[in-house]
Amino acid sequence: MLHLQSTSSDRWFSQVSDNLDLLLIDHAHCEKKAAGVAMNMIFAYVEDEDLCRAMTEIVNEELEHFHMVLELLHERGIPFRRLKPSNYGEQLHALIRKNEPERAVDRLLVAGLIEARSCERFGMLRERLEDKTLASFYDQLFESEARHHSAYVRLAKHYADDKTVMDRLDELAKAEAEIIAVGDENPRMHS
Amino acid sequence: MLHLQSTSSDRWFSQVSDNLDLLLIDHAHCEKKAAGVAMNMIFAYVEDEDLCRAMTEIVNEELEHFHMVLELLHERGIPFRRLKPSNYGEQLHALIRKNEPERAVDRLLVAGLIEARSCERFGMLRERLEDKTLASFYDQLFESEARHHSAYVRLAKHYADDKTVMDRLDELAKAEAEIIAVGDENPRMHS
Ligand SMILES: [Fe+2]
Ligand SMILES: [Fe+2]
Ligand SMILES: [Fe+2]
Ligand SMILES: [Fe+2]
Repeated sequence: MLHLQSTSSDRWFSQVSDNLDLLLIDHAHCEKKAAGVAMNMIFAYVEDEDLCRAMTEIVNEELEHFHMVLELLHERGIPFRRLKPSNYGEQLHALIRKNEPERAVDRLLVAGLIEARSCERFGMLRERLEDKTLASFYDQLFESEARHHSAYVRLAKHYADDKTVMDRLDELAKAEAEIIAVGDENPRMHS
Repeated sequence: MLHLQSTSSDRWFSQVSDNLDLLLIDHAHCEKKAAGVAMNMIFAYVEDEDLCRAMTEIVNEELEHFHMVLELLHERGIPFRRLKPSNYGEQLHALIRKNEPERAVDRLLVAGLIEARSCERFGMLRERLEDKTLASFYDQLFESEARHHSAYVRLAKHYADDKTVMDRLDELAKAEAEIIAVGDENPRMHS
């Protein structure tokens, strides 16, 4: 249902559970970026009203998540700061084809895969974190990231037929699984 | 209270009241752009939590306004489409200083002046439009643009002392009044 081609590794879980502060700071930035991506979709495909409505909802929810993570940082006395992002987003972005309408399909599917991976990792965090407050925080966010994933996949079908979209989703999901398997030396949500 | 150095001219009112369809289409784009500007502020000044909270509220409200204008276009059977923007935003943008923290002050004040001018023009539309449905639509939006104006001016004071901010606001408001007095040959919200 999340269309991912892999589950997250123990390598990632130990990397971030040893560095929860960095994970949380990066998570805040991820929510902000997710809001930015949805806003960019409105600018790029403004004639698509169905897309604009769905993206508006996602912008609002991601900004709400952003503030929820900031609040959590406050509670834990972790200062929020700028952080080098993992290489995940840039590598996925490079897979987006340049010409429309293929570009629209790819932008939406890449955004959808990032939502899916976040969701899958939130699922791992809620199950395996010893810190039960944090585990239940991730449980709380799980469902909306799954919903965002579905919205992006659905909207990609405005720009190509169903089979073309699902075939491309398979391709991109394979590439995503390879990227996430390598990871990043810095502990991040998508390392 | 809106810190503008001029009131809108009869020239503008006749230009747009003769071209209400174009005004409304442009207005939809303006609301979208206002949401985009507020989102960009979050990205640029993410360490400023007070700013991030205020910008989140503005993003939400501007996207809501965007959909309200789209709905109005639907009701009136006016097809929404891309439209060359007026030269107003670009000219104001050119006044923004390049180095921080002056850049932050200017970005916030320019955004605040655009809100103020929108608000002032919504006020003129609600008073003078013969189309009473449209007049009451603009009445409905008036208050939130005034609030956005105040929020931007208040936040600029995070980046310079009060007097510096208010002096710069005076300067920028003078420049804004000159730009809006010349206007744009195309009927637009800021022509
Ligand atoms: Fe989120
Ligand atoms: Fe999401
Ligand atoms: Fe607005
Ligand atoms: Fe506004």
